[in-house]
Amino acid sequence: MRDAEQLDRDDPLAHLRARYVGSETPLVYLDGNSLGRPLRSTAERMAAFVTDEWGGRLIRGWDESWMELPLVVGDEIAAACLGAAPGQTTVGDSTTVLLYKALRAACALRPDRTEVVLCRDDFPTDRYVAASVARELGLSLRWVKVDPAAGVTPESVAAQLSGRAACVLLSHVAYRSAWLADAPAITAAAHDAGAVVLWDLSHSVGSVPLALDDWGVDLAVGCTYKYLGGGPGSPAFVYVAARHLDRVDQPVTGWMGHADPFAMGPEWTPAPGIRRMISGTPPVVGMLALRDTVATIAEVGMEGVRAKSVALTSYAVELADQLLAPLGAELASPRDPARRGGHVTVDHPRMREAVARLWERDVIPDYRDPGGLRVGLAPLSTSFAEVGAGMRAAAEVLAHA
Amino acid sequence: MRDAEQLDRDDPLAHLRARYVGSETPLVYLDGNSLGRPLRSTAERMAAFVTDEWGGRLIRGWDESWMELPLVVGDEIAAACLGAAPGQTTVGDSTTVLLYKALRAACALRPDRTEVVLCRDDFPTDRYVAASVARELGLSLRWVKVDPAAGVTPESVAAQLSGRAACVLLSHVAYRSAWLADAPAITAAAHDAGAVVLWDLSHSVGSVPLALDDWGVDLAVGCTYKYLGGGPGSPAFVYVAARHLDRVDQPVTGWMGHADPFAMGPEWTPAPGIRRMISGTPPVVGMLALRDTVATIAEVGMEGVRAKSVALTSYAVELADQLLAPLGAELASPRDPARRGGHVTVDHPRMREAVARLWERDVIPDYRDPGGLRVGLAPLSTSFAEVGAGMRAAAEVLAHA
Repeated sequence: MRDAEQLDRDDPLAHLRARYVGSETPLVYLDGNSLGRPLRSTAERMAAFVTDEWGGRLIRGWDESWMELPLVVGDEIAAACLGAAPGQTTVGDSTTVLLYKALRAACALRPDRTEVVLCRDDFPTDRYVAASVARELGLSLRWVKVDPAAGVTPESVAAQLSGRAACVLLSHVAYRSAWLADAPAITAAAHDAGAVVLWDLSHSVGSVPLALDDWGVDLAVGCTYKYLGGGPGSPAFVYVAARHLDRVDQPVTGWMGHADPFAMGPEWTPAPGIRRMISGTPPVVGMLALRDTVATIAEVGMEGVRAKSVALTSYAVELADQLLAPLGAELASPRDPARRGGHVTVDHPRMREAVARLWERDVIPDYRDPGGLRVGLAPLSTSFAEVGAGMRAAAEVLAHA
Repeated sequence: MRDAEQLDRDDPLAHLRARYVGSETPLVYLDGNSLGRPLRSTAERMAAFVTDEWGGRLIRGWDESWMELPLVVGDEIAAACLGAAPGQTTVGDSTTVLLYKALRAACALRPDRTEVVLCRDDFPTDRYVAASVARELGLSLRWVKVDPAAGVTPESVAAQLSGRAACVLLSHVAYRSAWLADAPAITAAAHDAGAVVLWDLSHSVGSVPLALDDWGVDLAVGCTYKYLGGGPGSPAFVYVAARHLDRVDQPVTGWMGHADPFAMGPEWTPAPGIRRMISGTPPVVGMLALRDTVATIAEVGMEGVRAKSVALTSYAVELADQLLAPLGAELASPRDPARRGGHVTVDHPRMREAVARLWERDVIPDYRDPGGLRVGLAPLSTSFAEVGAGMRAAAEVLAHA
C-alpha cells in the first residue's frame, strides 16, 4: 500500500487544498462530485457583492456588467474547461432546464428525424427530459446497450444509429460507474448518421479535459456545483457550436434572449449568438462562486487537474482492491484510468448501511443504489491522506456492517 | 407641496430604512421595483452560508434542509405575501422558465380548449412565452383590449372569453403603467367561461396585498428580485392551487420533481403536491437573500406595506402634478390609489435624455419606452425625502433637457 503522506508531498497541486473551507478539519470529504467544497475567498466575495455591487451599484449593475455576465462566465468556463472558443457558452437555469432547452433545440436542427438515442445508465434527469421532449415532439427513444465491461462505446452507439436519429444524448462520464465515453468517436459516429450530439458534461467538466470544438460537438450542457464549485444549486451552462448559432431555436422565449430586450416589442426575435439560449434574468448571485473555482482551474490547467484526478482515483482503486475486495466489495468503475472519470464506485450488498456509519464518523462519500459507495475526488481540494483515511474507514465499517 | 421630512417623521415604517445597504448615502434610489436594495443582514448571511452551511455541512446540507428549502421559502412567501395556505408555492428557476412551465400546466388542465387570453400591455416575456406555448400546442392568442383610462378590467377580459378559452394569463400590476387589475373579479370571469387563470405577480408581490386562495386563483408566478429583495436574478416562485395539485403536469421533468428522486427509476413519476413543479436542483445560494426581505414583510404585515406604498405613490403623483406637469409631462399611471400598484410612470417626449441626466446625478429611477420615467417605490426602504429629492431633480433636468 503506497503511503498517502508521501503522495501528498509529491503532489504538485497539494498547496491548493489550504484554500478550501474546512480543509483544516479532520472531516473526510469524498463527495466533491456531488457538491464541491467552497474556496475561502468565496465567502468574502459573496459578502462584498451584496454590499458593494448589488447594494452599491443597484440597477446600474445590469448595464455595467451583469447583463454580460452569463456570457462572460460562459467564456471563462469554455476557456478553462471546455476547449471551446468564446461566444458559444452561456450560464443560467438548472441543468434540467438547460437539458430541456438544448434537447428541444437539438431536435429542431433535424426536424425530419424521429429518434433520440440515449442510454439507460445515464442520470435520471437526462432520461426523464428526453421522454418528455419525445412525447411532445412525437419522437421515439432508442436505447444504447451498455456493456458493463466497456461502458458506452462508439460501436454500441453506432448500432442504434440510422437515418431516423435526430439527436444522440449521452453523458460524457457516467454518474454511477464513472465510465468515460469516447466523445470524439461517438460524435463522429452520430455525424456519420446525420444526427447531432448533445453531451451531458455534468460529471466530466472540471475533472476530464474537453475539446468540444475539436471534437465537432454540436451542443453540450453541464453542471457547475460539482467540480466547478458553484455551491448548492448553482446555475448550469450550455454550449452550442458556432455553426449552429444562427438557426438554433429553443422554446423558453424570455426577454433576455431577445435581440433587443429593452425594445419590448410585440414579437420574440432571437438574439444573435449564444444569447438566444438565455430565457430569464441571469442568476447573478448564483454565478459568483463558480468563477473562483474556474479561475483556479485556469491557473492550474486541465492537464494538471486531470493528472491529479487520475492519481487520486488510481489510489482509491488500489485501496479498494487491498481493503474492500477482501470483504466482498466489487469495483464498479473502470480499472483503466484512460476510461475513467473523476470518481470511483465500489459495490457491496451492505453498502447502504456502511455509508450511513461512515457519515456518523464524519467520513462523507456518496451512496448510489444499488449498493454503491461512490467516492468523488475533487482534484483541487482532495488530499491523498483524505482518500486513505476514507477507504480505511470504509473497510472498518464494512467489516462490521 | 407637503413636507417630505414631516411625512418621514409620521411614517410608522421609517425605522426600517436604516436596515438597508446604502440608505445612509445621498443616492436617491427610485427603482426598487426593478431591483430591491439588499438588507445589511444579507451580506453577513451570505458569507456565513458559504463558511458554515455549504463549507461546513457539505453534501449533508441537502438532507438537513436544502431539499425542502424551495417549499419552505415558498410557504414563507405564501404566508407573508400571497394569502395562500402552505403546500401550494415553491421557489426555483427564472420567472420566464416558471411562466413557461405554469402556462404549459395551465393549458394542460383544459386540453379541449384552444385559446390563451392575454394583454399587449403585459411584460414582453409573458407575451413571448405565450406565443411559444401557443405555437407548440396549436393554440391561438386572444388579446384583451386595454382602455388607457381604466387598465385591464373584468369587462374587457370577459369580452374575449368563450368556450374556447383555456387560460387567462395577465399581470396583476402592469409593469409600465402600474394599473392594478381586479384579480378576484377577473378570476371569477375566467371561471365562468370554464378557463383557468395564471397571474403574473411580478410587480405586485410584496407591494400589494394578495389573497390567492380567497380569490380562487388557479396558478400564479412571480419575481423575487423586485419587492422581495432576492438580489439580481434571484429565483422566481410558482403557486398552484391545492385543488389542481394532483393532476397538474409540466414538461421540464427533472429528478427533483420526481416522487422518489433517489430511486433513479426508469420513468418520471410526479411528486405529490407542489414539488412536481420543480425541475432541477434547487438554487439554494440564490434563495438566501429573499428570505430576509420576506421576514421583514412578515414582521410588518402586507397591510402596513400597502399603506406605506400608497402614501409613497400618492406623494410621487402630487409632486409630478406640481413639478413635472408644468413642463409638459403626463401621468401615465392611475390617479386612484385603489387602482395603482407600487410605482408611478410619468411620460414626456424628452424623458430618455432626462433619465440619463438623473443617473449622472446619482438619482436612479427607471426608464421605459416610450418616454416613461418609472418611479419604483419599495415600501420598506424608500423615504419620502428620497421621493421629494428625486422628483425635484427630475423637474430640474427636464427643464433643461
